[in-house]
Amino acid sequence: MAMLSSGKLVNLLRLADAAGRFKMLAVDQRASLQAALAKVTGREPEDVTHEEMAKTKQLIIEVLAPSSTATLIDPVYAFPRAVKIIPHRVGILVASEESGYEPAGPGGRERKVKLIDGWSVAKTKRAGANAVKLLIHYTPEASSEVRGHQQRLVRTVADECVREDIPFLLEVVTYSVDQATTDTPEFARKRPHHVIEAAREFSSGAYDVDVLKLEFPCDLKYTQEFRHRIVDQKERPVVYNLGEVRAFCRELDAAAGRPWVILSGGVDIQEFIASLELAVEAGASGFLCGRAIWQGVIPAYPHGERMRQLLTSEGISNFERANAVAERARPWFAHRSVGGWDQVQVQNSHEWYRRYPG
Amino acid sequence: MAMLSSGKLVNLLRLADAAGRFKMLAVDQRASLQAALAKVTGREPEDVTHEEMAKTKQLIIEVLAPSSTATLIDPVYAFPRAVKIIPHRVGILVASEESGYEPAGPGGRERKVKLIDGWSVAKTKRAGANAVKLLIHYTPEASSEVRGHQQRLVRTVADECVREDIPFLLEVVTYSVDQATTDTPEFARKRPHHVIEAAREFSSGAYDVDVLKLEFPCDLKYTQEFRHRIVDQKERPVVYNLGEVRAFCRELDAAAGRPWVILSGGVDIQEFIASLELAVEAGASGFLCGRAIWQGVIPAYPHGERMRQLLTSEGISNFERANAVAERARPWFAHRSVGGWDQVQVQNSHEWYRRYPG
Repeated sequence: MAMLSSGKLVNLLRLADAAGRFKMLAVDQRASLQAALAKVTGREPEDVTHEEMAKTKQLIIEVLAPSSTATLIDPVYAFPRAVKIIPHRVGILVASEESGYEPAGPGGRERKVKLIDGWSVAKTKRAGANAVKLLIHYTPEASSEVRGHQQRLVRTVADECVREDIPFLLEVVTYSVDQATTDTPEFARKRPHHVIEAAREFSSGAYDVDVLKLEFPCDLKYTQEFRHRIVDQKERPVVYNLGEVRAFCRELDAAAGRPWVILSGGVDIQEFIASLELAVEAGASGFLCGRAIWQGVIPAYPHGERMRQLLTSEGISNFERANAVAERARPWFAHRSVGGWDQVQVQNSHEWYRRYPG
Repeated sequence: MAMLSSGKLVNLLRLADAAGRFKMLAVDQRASLQAALAKVTGREPEDVTHEEMAKTKQLIIEVLAPSSTATLIDPVYAFPRAVKIIPHRVGILVASEESGYEPAGPGGRERKVKLIDGWSVAKTKRAGANAVKLLIHYTPEASSEVRGHQQRLVRTVADECVREDIPFLLEVVTYSVDQATTDTPEFARKRPHHVIEAAREFSSGAYDVDVLKLEFPCDLKYTQEFRHRIVDQKERPVVYNLGEVRAFCRELDAAAGRPWVILSGGVDIQEFIASLELAVEAGASGFLCGRAIWQGVIPAYPHGERMRQLLTSEGISNFERANAVAERARPWFAHRSVGGWDQVQVQNSHEWYRRYPG
């Protein structure tokens, strides 16, 4: 039996479709969206106003949230408008980390994440959301001090999610302490190990994570099969072939002790769909994807009607492609840590209602 | 602008259909269900076990909850099983009052309600439900001490719902201190006044009720038009005609300062559909109905397969009839206390996320 607490179960169900598959939209970007809006309008990121961020997110959510089983928003720009326009049958996840990271460790090449000041898991629950999302940067290359900091942060948020009885979705983004960019053959080679190690670490029972949001474990741009099919002029060496990529995906699934979904990390839609297919083949329970679906509308900023047209055409079409692939995903309750729908049960002791914590 | 707090808005949306109409199922009966199961099996109510109650509710919820926009359950028997089987797109309401009432006032002919010992609004919220339901018995005939007790109880639960930021649905059942039964011409005559007064009282800003669940203001069995069309052999005098009933419904709508739905109170399905039509015509936002929809299966107890057949045929058919009528109901946000969808807004002050209480 997989005993779940009531608040965890009810809200996990609200994040997925009726079959238990996650088809989730991310609109919680902050610094990256600010930078993108600044770039297309020839300004500095700090000149992009709160209102511009809020309106852009509102538009994306209005058009795309109906295609999702749940939508991830940030509490700073998106939340107050989003709760009115996210359809009643679509779940709501809220980001809890401050955008970006603080340089840390030797030479400032490591990364510490901090929580949004003034926001909390308790507020997320009280405001009516269905899940808490935390993004952490993590690499086995980092110093034990920085890894320890990130681990403690995960533990803290996990504890608060247990206290509030709300699902906890942990997103892990890997990096290399040696390189500022991840688009290198060296990092492409390291990536599988880093992603798999991170999945293993945060699957430990010590963390109480309900769903893992993981990077695709390889960089498809460094495969023989995809390096010329990706819309990108850059010449890249071959680091692995698709057979090896599939093996890394299987290894990731073996390391992920909790249901897992993949993120898009701003790759283009072709690459995202290809990686989603491979991830789903290996056992992923769906996706939580933002920019791969909607970044094509940013160049039209600030022309609202043109952006809406692009979202309604390309945006929805991208989403439908991803949803079609996710139809083959493993339902979250079919993950070995749960054991199937028949095994799902809410703690049902004698006088449950008295024993349940208030 | 109708300023709503986020938790109230998100969860109100989850109780209704996309157009804001409530088509809700009640499976929170306790004493009345226990009595009914005892009767068909020739036993005393206290001999009906917890498991029998839980299984009966599970079966009803399994078959009928998918037809509802939200399902009302009790925390004692229904909750732990219900949360697994209520579909993810259907809202959950939880009863907070102890079944029945305590005799009170002069001669013990008045009624005090008490909350379920060991349960709370905070537990309802934490467990993942979308609304708190409180039933109170109320009559303007009661002593000021007993009325005051009931008013304070409503105020207490309303305060907790504000603190937890969860919608509060208040059900008011009227009665007469003179009579044990309500099926009399005397009470039929009093009913409109009692129901309308109760709606007026609990619409006051002093209570913070989000949705009122009201009795139909008249007893249709005492109208010229319906007294022979109701499946019941009893001869009843005429108390009012349909024109007068319609006028009472309009008066009720004028008194109800919050969106309101009607309850079935165990009348048969014909009578319920007729009263729902009249209530909707007057401005009701839908229904929250239990026994009128599913009581027909109780005589088949304990034959699970026969009960399931009846639920799947008659039960769903009854629900579909009610849903069809509710298609013409007033969306909750079109009620004058809200002013229309365009007026709905979450408090959106500067740095909302900091100011929102945790």
